[in-house]
This record gives sequence, structure tokens and C-alpha cells, in this order.
Amino acid sequence: MKTALGRELPDFIAGYGEVKPFQGVSSGSKLRTRKAVALTSVFPDEKKVFKDLEEVLDKLQIRDGMTISFHHHLRNGDYVLNMVMEALAKRGLKDLTVAASSIFPIHEPLVKHIENQVVTGIAANYISGPVAEAISEGKLKKPALMQTHGGRARALESGDLQVDVAFLAAPAADSYGNINGVQGKSACGTLGYAVADAEYAARTVAITDNLVAYPACPIEISQIYVDYVVQVESIGDPGGIVSGTTKITKDPVALKIAKLAAEVIKASGLLKDGMSFQTGAGGTSLAVAAELAKVMRRDHVTGSFAAGGITGYLVEMLQEGLFRTLFDVQCFDLKAVESYRDDVRHQFMSASMYGNPHTKGAVVNNLDIMILGATEIDLDFNVNVTTGSNGVIMGGSGGHSDTAAGAKLALVVTNLLKARLPIIKDQVMTVTTPGESIDVVVTERGIAVNPQRADLIETLSKTKLPLLTIGELKALAEKITGLPKPVPTSEEIVAVVEYRDGTVIDVVRKVL
Amino acid sequence: MKTALGRELPDFIAGYGEVKPFQGVSSGSKLRTRKAVALTSVFPDEKKVFKDLEEVLDKLQIRDGMTISFHHHLRNGDYVLNMVMEALAKRGLKDLTVAASSIFPIHEPLVKHIENQVVTGIAANYISGPVAEAISEGKLKKPALMQTHGGRARALESGDLQVDVAFLAAPAADSYGNINGVQGKSACGTLGYAVADAEYAARTVAITDNLVAYPACPIEISQIYVDYVVQVESIGDPGGIVSGTTKITKDPVALKIAKLAAEVIKASGLLKDGMSFQTGAGGTSLAVAAELAKVMRRDHVTGSFAAGGITGYLVEMLQEGLFRTLFDVQCFDLKAVESYRDDVRHQFMSASMYGNPHTKGAVVNNLDIMILGATEIDLDFNVNVTTGSNGVIMGGSGGHSDTAAGAKLALVVTNLLKARLPIIKDQVMTVTTPGESIDVVVTERGIAVNPQRADLIETLSKTKLPLLTIGELKALAEKITGLPKPVPTSEEIVAVVEYRDGTVIDVVRKVL
Repeated sequence: MKTALGRELPDFIAGYGEVKPFQGVSSGSKLRTRKAVALTSVFPDEKKVFKDLEEVLDKLQIRDGMTISFHHHLRNGDYVLNMVMEALAKRGLKDLTVAASSIFPIHEPLVKHIENQVVTGIAANYISGPVAEAISEGKLKKPALMQTHGGRARALESGDLQVDVAFLAAPAADSYGNINGVQGKSACGTLGYAVADAEYAARTVAITDNLVAYPACPIEISQIYVDYVVQVESIGDPGGIVSGTTKITKDPVALKIAKLAAEVIKASGLLKDGMSFQTGAGGTSLAVAAELAKVMRRDHVTGSFAAGGITGYLVEMLQEGLFRTLFDVQCFDLKAVESYRDDVRHQFMSASMYGNPHTKGAVVNNLDIMILGATEIDLDFNVNVTTGSNGVIMGGSGGHSDTAAGAKLALVVTNLLKARLPIIKDQVMTVTTPGESIDVVVTERGIAVNPQRADLIETLSKTKLPLLTIGELKALAEKITGLPKPVPTSEEIVAVVEYRDGTVIDVVRKVL
Repeated sequence: MKTALGRELPDFIAGYGEVKPFQGVSSGSKLRTRKAVALTSVFPDEKKVFKDLEEVLDKLQIRDGMTISFHHHLRNGDYVLNMVMEALAKRGLKDLTVAASSIFPIHEPLVKHIENQVVTGIAANYISGPVAEAISEGKLKKPALMQTHGGRARALESGDLQVDVAFLAAPAADSYGNINGVQGKSACGTLGYAVADAEYAARTVAITDNLVAYPACPIEISQIYVDYVVQVESIGDPGGIVSGTTKITKDPVALKIAKLAAEVIKASGLLKDGMSFQTGAGGTSLAVAAELAKVMRRDHVTGSFAAGGITGYLVEMLQEGLFRTLFDVQCFDLKAVESYRDDVRHQFMSASMYGNPHTKGAVVNNLDIMILGATEIDLDFNVNVTTGSNGVIMGGSGGHSDTAAGAKLALVVTNLLKARLPIIKDQVMTVTTPGESIDVVVTERGIAVNPQRADLIETLSKTKLPLLTIGELKALAEKITGLPKPVPTSEEIVAVVEYRDGTVIDVVRKVL
């Protein structure tokens, strides 16, 4: 069986199931189903707050084989996943699946639970650190399921990913389960990734270190979706939750790439009033934002919105009037948290509203310009942000595929070489985002436009921008470094990469 | 077949179906289901805005027998229901069911559609004016379904009430269907009753007279729930949407009742820090709020929240610091609209969060004190707010049953006589709210406590408050007026009254 990109896939993967191969970015039925949910009714005389996690775990009756979910707004400062998994391991539970929107180095204790088969399944949109390495080494019994931010919301809502208990890390929660992310010592900003968990899990527990008087104000996740509330000493390490300030790179190569990217955007004709924009929090991506800001200021352009994980830099652009609003699924730094808390123009969005393809239109559908990163790009413009040059899992799509699919202009900005290895390959090791939704690759040595975008090639060829074919870019890199050696892998599948619509776009194999 | 209150019901009602009789306030399984929803995926290149209603109606392919829903935030100024039904009638459609959260005198043109069998079914939580009269006269082919505000959200979410197309009157909408109720010439405040329609109808159309730049800000209903957007000249008459200011009664009898009610509340011990409160917008109800405010000011009591349809008077209490927050499902006046727009403490709630019994706990569950009205009360404390003294439909539960079920202290405040008729009967003509959830009846001539509340009787008997039994109150009234004549009805059922959980608590019969 082959995907639309020509990748060979087995029909069936043990521990995953039947494989529906990727068919293209906009394919399949337009009629989808949001699943039915079994709901517990809470009567007026019942209480939701319990004094410790053990008491709640007693009530939840978690059994072997169940799926437990977490969200990642506390990022590399999150204590909640470790705390809950430790308690479940102590109870002798086995064969659990951890469905976390992302997994970070702080979740290293999960490796032990994987080794002991307390955890035999993992579903996440992004995995970095020891857990990613353990998966690549084949330690997890079932292949990890790697989704996109929008795809995870889709899977929760459709029932493809059935969660038995969702644990919601809550920077502020009241006694009846109303939650926000903007108050308390563990404030992290919006809780966009937790919404689908709260709405579609069979049971939902809020874990907070900041039990506030009823009712919480503001409310991001409503009491009607929360079964229990537990107060603990601390849900996270503020130092790991948000960075102090996000800094723009000073690396001259990155700045050159950013300048080129900004010129491509300008030449594309999209940089006009009402335009919308998203970028990641990486140094080069932010540098593109800074370059755009200069042009917007000079040409008096006011954008409609910037979206995504929001950084202080985008907040400054909002405050300066360069954008009218922000759509925020996750705050990356303190400035973003404060702005989200205090400024109505800094708007909340759930993961579903952000990128779920099976809704009546996610925010990514309205994106004009998207700035993306890449670990590898191939001659078909397919992008890998899942595995590193050594073949080991080091990330995942997050919103990469979602935004690329929606944006009118999806630009990959990257150095032509990374760690002395060329970025452009004949074939990427792992396809995260299909080339069909990538428009331009911008490197310090030249710019390649996807041949599908004949219109853009024509437009850009009228400028002085250094246009090359993707093959020429590749040759340029290989002239410097020589041909990179292929990474040897076994046949064993350690992860299944799902496209946002739930089809399988690729698999990750065990590194030898 | 009998309800728990002893009302005789048929097993089956033509045009309604099998009857599940009312079993008590907190009964039935605690495990309920939120229904599956068939969702249309909107791809990035598709547009949602259409130039007129006809174009959207063409796309919707509405057929005979379908159910069309509306929300009532534009109240007696709403143009949208009439506009849509007129267009559907012109298309020759028949046998439609109109599921509107409430129906007002402005919806008089619906009578014509009922007579022509364009409309053969109606579901609403409150019906007043010509449509109510037409139903009582037996003009509607099927019995009208009368629900509660929480019960309607429950029915939409469970699938008991299947809506084919929801039309959302939108004071502000952007081109991709993000909606708010606070901007534009038809601003009405929160859109709490429209949420379940948007989330659970098969198709959703926003009708706006204020198409704003994308993205709308703030957003109350998200683009992910909206299929189409139509701009029209006007969605409503501002004069009918919200009243200028809500005034407290100056009627001395009403003021006396309010004073007595406030004393009951004070004596109950509930009037302390953190207390919560809801009242309607009626003159006597607001007078109770004013009396409470006096006591709160004097005793330095800060409430946690006031809830419901919100009036300017409750906004003033918020601003004065007497309540920490408000929960608002619907704004009753301009001051409420402005406060909701500008003050984060004035919080949104959906109908489901307000009163849906089959969630993990609605706001009504946290109510301490609820002030209710009544058309009739009987010796079992059952309350009728559905039919008038002539037996004709003139209202409905709205949030009456929902709040009464949740509140720790549910007080009915009413004159002992209305239009020279006694309010207290052996049996109410129509049971809207079961006596089980009514604690106290306060009239100008005396106070009756539900015998179930022995604790409260003991507490109040230590005060100087004029306590009587409900029978004594009834006798007192009848001494003045004589025994009222029963209203003759036929056997024909013109409306089915559903309790909030979907069981049938009573039926309304055709008046002879």
C-alpha cells in the first residue's frame, strides 16, 4: 500500500491497527462525525473537590489498558503528567496509553513506566527528549501515534482517540471545575490544547495549585466538562512553563534568511491590509516577523490577525497596531501570558478552532502567511520535523501540517546546512508535512518555489531574489558537504505519523 | 400513567410520541449521552458569506418536515424568525417545526404559517402573545413542546431535539462566522441560548446586520460551528431587543412582599460571604434584590455571583462590590449589555452551563437563593408559569424549573391575589415546576414554607415573620374572593410540558 506521496506502508500495523494511507491535503468525505459522549450528570448536592490525587484516583476506577490524557501548556515545566503516572504506576496499573498533546524532556520518568509496561502506548503531537529517544530505541510496546495539533483535536472529537480520563493541569481552578490559565504561580496563558480533552474524555480531572473562590474569573474551560478537582502543592516549575522573553536571533545567516523571506512575502502581494500571519517561536521565524514588522510600519499595513503559539514579539506587534487581533492556542512567554490576560484583542482559540480539518473551518484556513521550520526537505517539498539527522524522533508536526495546509503562502525558512549536513534530500526520512502544502523554501543561499505554484514563480522571477530549483539548492549544499550517508533503520515501526485528517502519512522505524 | 405528582398522562401523544412521565427532580440514570453530530468540513478555499438569504436557502436544501431553530436574545425586537419563516413559506415548504428558545408577540406572523401548515410543530421554553393563543386554540397540528432553558440545551445535546438548520441572529459576525452579541445597532449582549443550536444543529447560518472585519473580537460563537453567513438590512428593532432601564416597582404591596422575602433569606442563614443569587426581571423580583442589597451593604456581605438573565440592577450590585462576578445567559437591558461588553467579571454562560441537568454540573447547582414568580401555586407547592388564569398559554418555564431545582432556597414571591383571583389552588392548572423544588412562598399576607423543609420552618418560626401553612394562605385568599371557577378544557392536548430532564411533567389542553 502506498500513500499519495509514494511511501510504502503496511496495511495493518500491530498496536496501531488498519492503515488508511494519506491521500492528499484536501481529500476524503466532507461529512464527518463528532462522536457521542457518555456524560455523568452531577446533581446539586454533590461536591467535586477532593483532598488529594489518591482519593480521586479511587473514584475514577482506572483500569489496565485505559487511555489517560494530558495537555502541554506547562511545557518543560509540567509536573502533572509525571505526578499522575507515578501514582498510577504505584497502583500497579499496566498497559496504559498516554495521550499527551506534547511530551518534553521533563517527562523523562515516563521512560521508566515504558520499560515497566505501565505505559505501552503514547499519542502526542510533539515528542522531544528521553521519551522520544526511548521510542526510537523500540522500548515502547506499541508504535507511538504522532498527530498534529489540529489532528489530535479531530481524533478526540471523532472518537478515533478515545480518552478514558483527561487530567487538566489548571493554573487556576474553582471548587466546581471552572478553569483558567492566567492566574497563580503556574500561570501559562491560554489552555487551547486542553479543550477537546475536557469536552470529549469520559472523565475529567482538574489538578491545580491555585484553588480560587467560586466562580473562577475568567473561565476558559467550564465546570460542565469537569468531574473532579484536586489541589496539589505545585503543578509546575514556572521557569520551564514560559520563557522570560523570546529573543530574536543575532545570527547573521538567520537574519539573512529572514530578510529574504520577508522579501518573498512582500513580492507575493499578500502583505496588505487585513493580512494574517503565523510564525513559530524559533529565532529565525521571529526574525521574519521582525522584518515583516519593518515593512508593515513603513507601508502602513494593518494585519487582521497573527496566530499560533504567541510570543511577546507578536504581542508587541499587536500593541503597536500592526495586527488588529491575535489568536492564541498557547502562550510561549510571560509577555504573551500577560497580554492574553489583559487585552481582549488577544483572543483564545482551542486546538480545534486552530487546526481541526473536520470542522466548519479552522483559523489556519484564514492564514495568509505561515513561516515554518524544517529538519529536512525533499525534492517534492515534503518536510520532516519529526526525526533528526540521526533518524531519532526529536519533535513532530505540532501545528506544522495544519498551518501549511491552510496558509495561502507557506514558507519554510532554514539554513541550507545544519550541523554540516545538507537540509535538502532526495527523500526526507520521515514525511511530516506533504510538499503539496509547502510553497517556498528560503535558505541563505537561495529560494526554491514549489513548481505547483507557477503563479508565484512568475511573480518572483520578476524580482532580484535568488530563485533556484529545489534540485539546484540540493546540489549547492552537496557541493559543500558531499552526499550525506543514509541512516540505517530496521523494519520495526516505532511510530506512526498521522496526517491531520487521520490518514497515515508515514512511519518511523527503529534506528539501528 | 401518572407522574410523580399524580398527574394523569396518556402513554403516547400523537405528534409528540411516547411519554416518559416525570419521576422527581433528581431521578433517572446519572449517565447520559451527548449525541454524535454530522459535521461538514470546510476547506481553506471555500467562502461562507452569501449575498442574501435566498442564496443560502438554496444551499441548505431545506425540505418539508425539517426542524429549524432560533434563539431569542433579540426578544420582542427579533426580525430573524419572521424573515426566515416568510422565506420558507414562500418556497412552499410545509410541515416544519420551529424550535425557538422563546417566542414573543413580535412573532405573530407565525400564526399565519401555523394556519397554513407551513409550521406544524413548535418547541420553545417560553411562548407569549398571538402564537401562544393560537396554540391554545388548537391551531397547531402537533402539540407544542414546552421545555426549560436547561432542558432545551439538554435536548439539543442529547439528540432528543434534532435541529436541521439553526439560524443565529448575530449582532456582529465576520465573514467566517465568528459571532458576538455586543457590537452593532442590534447589540443584545450575551448569546447564551444560541450555543447549543450552533454546536448541535446539522447546519448553522449566521444572519447579521453588522458584518465586521475578520476576525470578530470578541467571539462568543466560533467559526468552527457556522456554515454560512448572510448580511441583511436589519435583524431587529433595538427598542424591542433590550429595555432602556429596568425599574424597580413602586407598588407598596410588591415592596412589602420584597421586604418579607429579604427577611426570610436573612433568617435562612444563607446571606453570607460567598452567597449566590438569581432573580428575574419582574418588578417584585428586582425589589427583592434591592432589599437584599441593603442588608448586604449593612452587614458587609460579598456574594460570589448573581446569575441569570442580567439586569442593570444586578450590574450596579456588581459594580458596588456586592457580588464578585455575574453569570449571564441573556442581557435584559442596555446597562447589562454594556457591562457584559466591558467588564470581565460579567461572565458569559451558555444555556447548558446555566441549567442543563445532564452535564457535570450547571451553574444553577451552585445557586443559594432563587427568586421566582408564579401564576398559580398549589397545596403541594407546584408552580404554574405556563398557563394563565384563563387556561391559555402565556409563558413557560424558561429557567424557572432549572433554577428551582438547583437553588438551596427557592422562593416564590407573589401577590396573594392577582386580577381578583387567588393565586393558591388545590391543584395548579399546569405544573411547570414541581413543588419538591420550591421552598417558600412569600405573599403580602403571609409566608408558607414547604413542609419538606422542616429545618427552615423551625428556623423561621423563631422569627416574627408571618408563617402560615399553604392551606391557610389559600383559605385567606378565598375568604376575600370566593372559590374561583375552574377553567373548562377539552381533552385535546395542545402542548406537552417537559421537565428539564426530558420527562413529561404535564400537558396543556385546549380551552373550551
